[in-house]
Amino acid sequence: MRKLKVAVVGATGVAGQQFLASLSGHPYFEITTLAASPRSAGKTFTQAITSEAGACQWFCAEPLAAEFARMKVLDAAQFDPTTVDLVFAAVESDAARELEPRFARATPVISTASAYRYEEDVPIFIPGVNQSHAELLAVQRKNRDWRGFITPVPNCTTMGMAMTLKPLQAAFGIRQVLMTSLQACSGAGRSPGVVALDIIDNVIPYIPKEEEKVQRETQKILGQIVENRIEPAAFPVSATCTRVPVLEGHTEVVYVSLERPVAIEEVKSAWRQFGADFLALGLPSAPAHLIEVTEDPFRPQPRRDRDAGGGMVTTVGRVRTDPALVNGIKYVLVSHNTKMGAAKGAILVAEYLAQSGHI
Amino acid sequence: MRKLKVAVVGATGVAGQQFLASLSGHPYFEITTLAASPRSAGKTFTQAITSEAGACQWFCAEPLAAEFARMKVLDAAQFDPTTVDLVFAAVESDAARELEPRFARATPVISTASAYRYEEDVPIFIPGVNQSHAELLAVQRKNRDWRGFITPVPNCTTMGMAMTLKPLQAAFGIRQVLMTSLQACSGAGRSPGVVALDIIDNVIPYIPKEEEKVQRETQKILGQIVENRIEPAAFPVSATCTRVPVLEGHTEVVYVSLERPVAIEEVKSAWRQFGADFLALGLPSAPAHLIEVTEDPFRPQPRRDRDAGGGMVTTVGRVRTDPALVNGIKYVLVSHNTKMGAAKGAILVAEYLAQSGHI
Amino acid sequence: MRKLKVAVVGATGVAGQQFLASLSGHPYFEITTLAASPRSAGKTFTQAITSEAGACQWFCAEPLAAEFARMKVLDAAQFDPTTVDLVFAAVESDAARELEPRFARATPVISTASAYRYEEDVPIFIPGVNQSHAELLAVQRKNRDWRGFITPVPNCTTMGMAMTLKPLQAAFGIRQVLMTSLQACSGAGRSPGVVALDIIDNVIPYIPKEEEKVQRETQKILGQIVENRIEPAAFPVSATCTRVPVLEGHTEVVYVSLERPVAIEEVKSAWRQFGADFLALGLPSAPAHLIEVTEDPFRPQPRRDRDAGGGMVTTVGRVRTDPALVNGIKYVLVSHNTKMGAAKGAILVAEYLAQSGHI
Amino acid sequence: MRKLKVAVVGATGVAGQQFLASLSGHPYFEITTLAASPRSAGKTFTQAITSEAGACQWFCAEPLAAEFARMKVLDAAQFDPTTVDLVFAAVESDAARELEPRFARATPVISTASAYRYEEDVPIFIPGVNQSHAELLAVQRKNRDWRGFITPVPNCTTMGMAMTLKPLQAAFGIRQVLMTSLQACSGAGRSPGVVALDIIDNVIPYIPKEEEKVQRETQKILGQIVENRIEPAAFPVSATCTRVPVLEGHTEVVYVSLERPVAIEEVKSAWRQFGADFLALGLPSAPAHLIEVTEDPFRPQPRRDRDAGGGMVTTVGRVRTDPALVNGIKYVLVSHNTKMGAAKGAILVAEYLAQSGHI
Repeated sequence: MRKLKVAVVGATGVAGQQFLASLSGHPYFEITTLAASPRSAGKTFTQAITSEAGACQWFCAEPLAAEFARMKVLDAAQFDPTTVDLVFAAVESDAARELEPRFARATPVISTASAYRYEEDVPIFIPGVNQSHAELLAVQRKNRDWRGFITPVPNCTTMGMAMTLKPLQAAFGIRQVLMTSLQACSGAGRSPGVVALDIIDNVIPYIPKEEEKVQRETQKILGQIVENRIEPAAFPVSATCTRVPVLEGHTEVVYVSLERPVAIEEVKSAWRQFGADFLALGLPSAPAHLIEVTEDPFRPQPRRDRDAGGGMVTTVGRVRTDPALVNGIKYVLVSHNTKMGAAKGAILVAEYLAQSGHI
Repeated sequence: MRKLKVAVVGATGVAGQQFLASLSGHPYFEITTLAASPRSAGKTFTQAITSEAGACQWFCAEPLAAEFARMKVLDAAQFDPTTVDLVFAAVESDAARELEPRFARATPVISTASAYRYEEDVPIFIPGVNQSHAELLAVQRKNRDWRGFITPVPNCTTMGMAMTLKPLQAAFGIRQVLMTSLQACSGAGRSPGVVALDIIDNVIPYIPKEEEKVQRETQKILGQIVENRIEPAAFPVSATCTRVPVLEGHTEVVYVSLERPVAIEEVKSAWRQFGADFLALGLPSAPAHLIEVTEDPFRPQPRRDRDAGGGMVTTVGRVRTDPALVNGIKYVLVSHNTKMGAAKGAILVAEYLAQSGHI
Repeated sequence: MRKLKVAVVGATGVAGQQFLASLSGHPYFEITTLAASPRSAGKTFTQAITSEAGACQWFCAEPLAAEFARMKVLDAAQFDPTTVDLVFAAVESDAARELEPRFARATPVISTASAYRYEEDVPIFIPGVNQSHAELLAVQRKNRDWRGFITPVPNCTTMGMAMTLKPLQAAFGIRQVLMTSLQACSGAGRSPGVVALDIIDNVIPYIPKEEEKVQRETQKILGQIVENRIEPAAFPVSATCTRVPVLEGHTEVVYVSLERPVAIEEVKSAWRQFGADFLALGLPSAPAHLIEVTEDPFRPQPRRDRDAGGGMVTTVGRVRTDPALVNGIKYVLVSHNTKMGAAKGAILVAEYLAQSGHI
Repeated sequence: MRKLKVAVVGATGVAGQQFLASLSGHPYFEITTLAASPRSAGKTFTQAITSEAGACQWFCAEPLAAEFARMKVLDAAQFDPTTVDLVFAAVESDAARELEPRFARATPVISTASAYRYEEDVPIFIPGVNQSHAELLAVQRKNRDWRGFITPVPNCTTMGMAMTLKPLQAAFGIRQVLMTSLQACSGAGRSPGVVALDIIDNVIPYIPKEEEKVQRETQKILGQIVENRIEPAAFPVSATCTRVPVLEGHTEVVYVSLERPVAIEEVKSAWRQFGADFLALGLPSAPAHLIEVTEDPFRPQPRRDRDAGGGMVTTVGRVRTDPALVNGIKYVLVSHNTKMGAAKGAILVAEYLAQSGHI
């Protein structure tokens, strides 16, 4: 298979950089274009991420590959999408609303932005969870008369919760979900991101628009396609999203009322077996298991578990019966918000869509 | 009124120090005895809290009063409780189990330890919430043939939640409670307390025994006296207790299903009016309001709100309808875990019991 | 004495807010004007500091006085300085360069910005250290044909070091100074300030322009007036300025080579006695001592010592002989960067200038 | 070459675990014995590091190899050193004083403890810096009539400084050194280690005994062997050691007066070329360069640079002329305190001694 040519749009931002960190030497994809705002256009990538004061603002733990360092950055507004097979878009929501349809007319777009997540003909993929929603891509193309399509990944906080709810829904049915998140600072990016003066020795109990996203996206992802649209899952989802002094890795405390009584071991077993068919595809970015269940009562912890499976595993622990809900269970999960929850999750989606012939 | 003579037992620990910080110049109480473990006995208080390497281990923000600095520390095991009118006990649970009954034979004991919280004839007071439980003290005295009694304050995490649930229970009735705490490090004390290597850039999603305490104490505090014992409140309470990199101030995310539909404004109003009778007593450590409701969507925050009312106010915010529970509301609270949630809360209890003639 | 009318320009920023926090009920000064950028003009102060998302961005620990909360904020560019007796200017350096001379034509300006610190006829005051430089104000007025003047306070990092060097210079003479700072995040303000992703679990070893300021200002402050200009102190100063995950309070590790051998006790004694004449003036914001010397080997610590004397005391500890320098001593100091090192320091300067008839 | 059998003594501690993390699959060494205190004896390693509450206390980022997880832990006091070819000792200094000579009678001991660092016939190795001191091992054997020997690695704070001073000493000569460290919490281990309540939002400006160690060890490491003993380097070293809220990676701000004037580029060049002979040995744990010089003015940073070269590289930046010292330069370095500064440094020493026939 020849490699697909891909553009990373919004390449200089925190999410964009994660694409570069993960695509060096990728077996399916070859970055041929980096694009960003006019401010960066015409510079090499290294120049574009170097501040006036001389700081190299590369924020990934992985090194910046030399091949990308010297690439010229294009102006996203000028970039011709017909020159690539696939666009990874990692721009702010307002920019996404303008740029992504322009790209999608010609080329598939996989996006980390929320701009199109709630449109009727747009699926929100989580690899291993709702591949069947891919049939919506043909509907979208037809509706909009596009050669490409837009498919966003979910909000980083939705990711871990939807991943762990899917096997519960499939095996036991879900009546209610309540979730409190303790989110990492990286989710807010860097301009300005979370200010140290606000978060050191503190918790910020509100992240604008986050709770609505989590509630709505979870229902959509766990919904079913009915007559060319997604019928959202019917169970209610209640979220409270907070920010804590953690760099990477979202922690979520989840309370679920199930449709029938279950033993905790059944729940763990459903998680441990989850995703076998998807994992059997052997996609390059897929981890060995989508979900790992820890028996250590003090885990999962964001610092110690966020990098499990290269940041692609959702770690679940403290699985207990909930005394307040009907057929209730409760648990804690950790999911890497800028890996599985953003760029690497988008790449895994792209791998699936490429392998299944959608790209 | 002559001042009551009080002993602080466990005076050198984190909780004990908070008693000293709050009792200097107190209008009702005069510390006449400091007691601690044999290791400290015979030293001045300053010597007792100075490490071998010369560090003065006074941990309160308030200065150490000179009058206490030079007091001799007694061995708690040798201390004669008949020499004081009241004992504030701030020792570990195992020590409390042994020491407190010995003291209580002669003298009232107000304790921050959990050792006796779950005994049938022992009330757990929260000032303003359940003063009526004071009648249990007479029962306890009679049962045990003591001149004094033991009355513990609740766990620091129970404090804020029970405080905010009480007016909801009174006005609307409660069906279910689910709570996720984001607790400060000071709750674990200092020997060893929370280790920096565990908590920087991290969350620890488990605090041994904490959830059981919160669930059980909340039901007891909000219960009713029936035939000389407390009939716990019947609604289920589900807690998940986590530790976050915050120095002081517990944050709690609470989901409540009420007995009847209510408007959010009714809820806020119930909180704002709560405790008027109790506050009218004008006790020295009581704040102007027990509960403050903030309209800032980004509050309450532990660093910015923990010191409200000298650490005696519970601040509530983000009050919203909960989409997943029947007649559901959800909110976030911040309560100071070592002030209202420990020593200053115990002092407020003592003030009430002194004023009402129980001491 | 009637109170002087003062304007706080740049009132909505971090430094500006500190002026408001410290001037409520001040015996000498009455805020009659708040001014800020055009974005805030016409709003009440509360409106001006409330974000679009509804967050009240008041960052001081002290409450916002109601009297200031409802004042209308003027556009700094339009504000008429003849309406006040004194301007406290707390704006960025670029804005200061434009605004401050316009104000100074009519009215004295005390500034936290660096824009005019290095001009020949501009003194940089530290209360208690170099009041004699006040004679330069008359020179400045004459040179520039202004009725007012500009007098900036030093950089927050200069403050603690110059304070502790002055008595050493006076008593023993100084040959060389080397200093490493561990600076708090508040020094960078909030737009954007220090980003949490950069500083959690980290140190940033560079603060642009900071080292040059510290070196140059220290020599100027400790210099002498010779023929209507300041002859800087002749000893070299070498600084390395770093940022650490601390909210408030700069820590500085200082190595000094003195002109003659001294015993450590002489050094401590010089510090303990420092500023007696100045303190005898009884200015409202002056602490009981300018410098406190701690014998606890683990102190000073920024969190535990920054608020000494209401943030106006420089705490010094770990005073030792230095084995590498001629007549060397070394020590650690903590100074509150946004109190003595900014707004409250400027207010203390104003109190001195008012009392001594310069305003 | 057959692999050497090695014991890790003190295997359950923070430093001991780092040996396990680094020795899995090592080409020269095979762990055949794990030993620790009697408390752990008889348990599997996994049991020994599991707390009563069920927490698996494995603290390395690298996974625990299954081969070590199920090994039985011996009592260090009972362990027979003749059963192995080499002992890695990672115990507290008091235990080291007793155990290490017992082992060394039979077997070479490479130690992370300070107990024997200051004995006349004991070298303190830093790989690449002072291999020539190996001749002292024969002296030690003869003096003490041992078949083995004890050779400790330096204090973690000495490591980075001595590494960067060595090429300066060789090329330019050194007159004076002043150093301020900003040390990570991991250096204090975990029982109790640095307590979160002490270090969050804080700096602790004192680490008992650390400064003396750094001063003395640096002079010894950079000294010369003269008549069977090390003649310490003659230049004075002054250190101030502080603790900051950083997990791993020591930052050091160094001021050096050289014997002759040098250009900054000469200094950088000396660092970049340093250790070529040593690196040419191709030892398994050696990085590509011992010292890396960064031109980014905001680097080195502990979080971003500690893992350079697998934690074996010392990163140097901010290299500038020092205005206060004769022929002065100043710079900032970051060195990984538990990798190059402890276990991995000890392994690199072992590799060198094995390859050069000393083991």
